[in-house]
Formats: sequence, C-alpha cells, structure tokens
Amino acid sequence: MSHIYIYSPSSAQRDKAAFRRGVARLQALGHEVEVDPDALATHMRFAGDDATRLAAVHRAAASGADLAMISRGGYGLTRILPGIRTKALARAVERGTRFVGFSDFTALQCALYAQTGAVSWMGPVVHDDFGRPEVVDDIMQACLQDLLAEQGEGSGWQLPRVAARKPDAFDARTDKPLLARPVRNAVLWGGNLSVLTSLVGTPYFPQIDGGVLVLEDIAEHPYRIERMLTQLLHAGVLARQKAIVLGQFTQYQLAPNDKGYKLQTAIDWLRSQLRVPVLTNLPIGHVPTKVVLPFGLPVDLLVDGRDALIYWGHAH
Amino acid sequence: MSHIYIYSPSSAQRDKAAFRRGVARLQALGHEVEVDPDALATHMRFAGDDATRLAAVHRAAASGADLAMISRGGYGLTRILPGIRTKALARAVERGTRFVGFSDFTALQCALYAQTGAVSWMGPVVHDDFGRPEVVDDIMQACLQDLLAEQGEGSGWQLPRVAARKPDAFDARTDKPLLARPVRNAVLWGGNLSVLTSLVGTPYFPQIDGGVLVLEDIAEHPYRIERMLTQLLHAGVLARQKAIVLGQFTQYQLAPNDKGYKLQTAIDWLRSQLRVPVLTNLPIGHVPTKVVLPFGLPVDLLVDGRDALIYWGHAH
Repeated sequence: MSHIYIYSPSSAQRDKAAFRRGVARLQALGHEVEVDPDALATHMRFAGDDATRLAAVHRAAASGADLAMISRGGYGLTRILPGIRTKALARAVERGTRFVGFSDFTALQCALYAQTGAVSWMGPVVHDDFGRPEVVDDIMQACLQDLLAEQGEGSGWQLPRVAARKPDAFDARTDKPLLARPVRNAVLWGGNLSVLTSLVGTPYFPQIDGGVLVLEDIAEHPYRIERMLTQLLHAGVLARQKAIVLGQFTQYQLAPNDKGYKLQTAIDWLRSQLRVPVLTNLPIGHVPTKVVLPFGLPVDLLVDGRDALIYWGHAH
Repeated sequence: MSHIYIYSPSSAQRDKAAFRRGVARLQALGHEVEVDPDALATHMRFAGDDATRLAAVHRAAASGADLAMISRGGYGLTRILPGIRTKALARAVERGTRFVGFSDFTALQCALYAQTGAVSWMGPVVHDDFGRPEVVDDIMQACLQDLLAEQGEGSGWQLPRVAARKPDAFDARTDKPLLARPVRNAVLWGGNLSVLTSLVGTPYFPQIDGGVLVLEDIAEHPYRIERMLTQLLHAGVLARQKAIVLGQFTQYQLAPNDKGYKLQTAIDWLRSQLRVPVLTNLPIGHVPTKVVLPFGLPVDLLVDGRDALIYWGHAH
C-alpha cells in the first residue's frame, strides 16, 4: 500500500464525478489516497489563484507521500514557476516522494530538474487516466504500480510500420538504421512539446547534453509541431542529444490547404536537418496507454527491428 | 512612382483572384509592380519548396526595388532562416529597398536585425491588405504611400477605454499613469507574438535593450498569449524594454471553462509582474487598419490622455 497525495497546480477540475471516480479507483488498488484541501478549487480557468496553487504544490512536497499526483494538466504552472521552492520539492524527492504527471506538469518537471537535478516521473494524472468512465488502461496502471513497488526498470514499444513495408527504424534517404548502436547512459527528459518550448531561454529550461529527449503534444497542427521542433533545432538543443523520441501527437486537424503536408512531413524534414536519430510512436502523451518514464535518470535506448526499449534498471 | 517587388516566402497563395486584385490595386496607385516568377508556386502548404522560397527571398533582395512586399504570411520562413543570406538583404536595404510585411514575416525581420542590424518595416502584404474584395483601408494605404514617399515619420492611435470610465493609460492598482514620461530614442521591434517567441534561444532572436516591443497575434487563446508573454518575461526580454505595446489580438474563441478569464486578465497579470509599461490597442496585426512601423529604428513614444504616439522622424 502506498500513500498517494493528489493536488491541482494547473487548470480547474470541472468534472468532479471523474475526479471522485479516479480517487476511488486508486483507493481500490489498495492505496491510501490523500486529497489536497484545494484540489477542487477554482479561480477562472485555474484550480485556484496563483497563491492557492503554489501552496498546493508545497503541501504536496511536505506530504511525505510516496507519490504526488496532479489531478489534471491544462494550463497554470508556467506562470507560477518563480514561486515554486524547487529545493523543497527536491528534498521531498530525496525522502522518497515521486512527483508524477504529464502535459502542463512538464513545466514543473523542467524547473525542478534545471534548478536541483531532482528526478520526477512522466506518467498518469487522476482525471485523464483514472477518472474517465472507460476502463482504466492496463499498461498505464501496471507501470504506475511498478513505480510504486520500485520495480519499474524500463519500457518497450513497437516502432510503426512506414510505407506498409518496414519499421520506422531506418533513414528514409539512406536506408541505414536510425539507431545503429544502442544509446547508453543518457539522461531522459522532455514531455509536452508546447510546454517545453515555452521554457526555452528561461531559467527553467534544463541544460542537458547527451540526453534522450522525449516529446508529445495534443491539438497542435503539424506545422506548429514543426515550428516548435525548429525552435529546439535552431537553439541547438536537439543536436546536443543522443536521441529524440517522439510520443503521441493527437487531436489535431489537417486542413485542405495542407495539400499533403502532414505530421510525417515534419518528421522527415526534421530528420533531414539533424544527425541525431528521431524515433517515433513511444506510448506517452494524451492517450490512455502511456508508460511511466523517469525525467532526469540516465537510460539506455535500444532498437531491434520494430522493437524499441528504454531501460533504466532499478531507480534506487 | 515606386518599384514594388512581390514575392512569396511563406504559405502558398491559394486565392489567385485576390492576388491579382492586390497587384492591380498597387498598379492603380501608380507603382511599377514586379511579380517574382515563383510568387504563385505551391509545394504542399508552402509557396514552393524551401529552395524555391529561399531563391525568391534573394531575388527580392537583388531586385533593386523600392519596396519588397510579401504576397502573404502563413508559415514557412522559420525553417529556412539558416539559408537566408541576411548580408545580401542588408545591402539591399542600404541601396534603398524596404522590406515590408507582418505575421510570418516577423521571422525574417528578426533574423535580419539580429544578424545585420538592418531596418525593415511592419506593414501590409498583398493578399490580406490589397487583395480582398472589400475596399482597401485608407489608413493602411496612406501609411504605405508615406513610406514610399519617404514622408512617414510617426503613427498615433487611441488607447481603449476600460471600465467605461477612463483610458487604458493608468495602472489599475495604483491609478498612476502607465507612461508618466515619454520614452525617447528606443529601438522599435517585434511583430507576431507566436513567431517572435518561436525564435527565443536561437541566433535569430534580436538582443535589444531599452526598446519598444510591439506584439500582435491571431487565433491564439488568451492563455496561450499569456504563456508566450510569460516566456518573454521569464527570459528577461520584457524587463529590458522601455515599453511593451500590444497591437490587435484577434479571432480567438473563449471557452465555457474560462469562467471570466479573458485577454484583459492576461494583460493585467503581465502588468502585475513587470515595471515596464504595457500599452494596448496599437493598430497593427491581422486587421485591415494597420499602421506602418520601422523594425529596428529608434522611436519616441508619448501618451497624452487617450492619445498615444510613436514617432521616428524622417527615417533617412
């Protein structure tokens, strides 16, 4: 049984039934769930005003919980980053509290790592992953349970087939493998592309060389995804990594004026601008099936045919 | 009579009737209009592939025209910035060619200024400003004609009324004037907020201290406008300016979940984070009535009641 602390640093929780359903499902897994007193606060689009959300973050850090999970993402962390006492969060991490989430949570993860080097976790949130009426995703839940049991040590996934012929593991121009040799001991980081790029040039953007950069996004047209990737490219961030791993990019609409321009066009263009391998299809993002990954831990990355693996061994 | 060179560095021109209408209207003003051979090229969503658009930019620089005007904005300049020979453009500026445009064109203006210090102009494009069936805006056209006659020396506008009571020229908390003393000799720069922030951290972002930063955008929800302004804030860009002047932010949709959060909320929050005055309502952006402003020239900025003025004297 683990102690899970639930708090709301970003957007307001509108669907309270979903929230309660999520809490109940986490309890049904045998966990002690503690809900922050302002988890359901609202202030316009936010889960309380800035001071309220900051206090919630610091209560989560002081909770002594095994896991601090956000109720949902949305928007709200970026603007309160200067008020977050990242050293207090890092001390909580040292005491065994794992901070988990995705989407807007990327902002907190970046600031925490940039300022303290503390590890946090890309993974589920209450509303999206445990609160919806649909059945809870098996893989997501198993990854979270592994994390709490300190048994998580890696995640495998399948690269997509391209051209109905072969896996997206080969350079389309040279036909050489994208990842000829395994990547060893590279710090994994990243998260939501929009949130991550909104931190470029600020003190909250991690300076990581030789890492594995993981990216996902929702409701961003491929041209906007390309523009954000181009910012990271021109800022020199991508060339400093050992690999870029794209997760799920979902819920965008192509337009008639795109005339064949699509997400794969942006990926192909990025690969043409970069020697660093760009892998695809990692199950993270705004999708039910998401794996749990450590932001800030060294990992190995391997590809064999369509099979890809990120491995960090025991994280303790 | 001026020589106007029209080229397409960004999105494809889909509405060819509008393009021809714009060309005809510029000719009807008495100008010699030269159309780039690839002005109507298409490659997926772009006005030709990257090499085609780069060649068009360099032909515009070599044209010897008085004015180099883009057909339209959209998206396409950011990814070709490394291929633009900005020194060739700067030499064209020295010879008397004025580069004009807005929206995606902000990327070229930023790169040009960052790498050479050359001045360009925020102003109209063919499709949006001369091509639509509606009558051409008087003010926009007069500003362009003034630029070509070398008579442009400033633009005035009215600050909006807030609370139906007084102009948006006073700090809402202290009731003190936002701009108590005129700003003198401050380099004007900026443009489209999305495009400008997509250059933060790259070699194409101008390093300007003590400037007047002008910003506009289209189809961005206020929370996204706020997130972009927050990036500029946390990157230290805003605090280094003498004034921020917001233009028109148009065509976004508020959502039921905003619960009262709106553009003014983001502006109020920004003002609470910043000692630099934030003025509003400048007529630039994705609107018919737009003034022409020099990107890279020192300007004066004055406020008297509801009347605001940006003044640069003769630019030659």
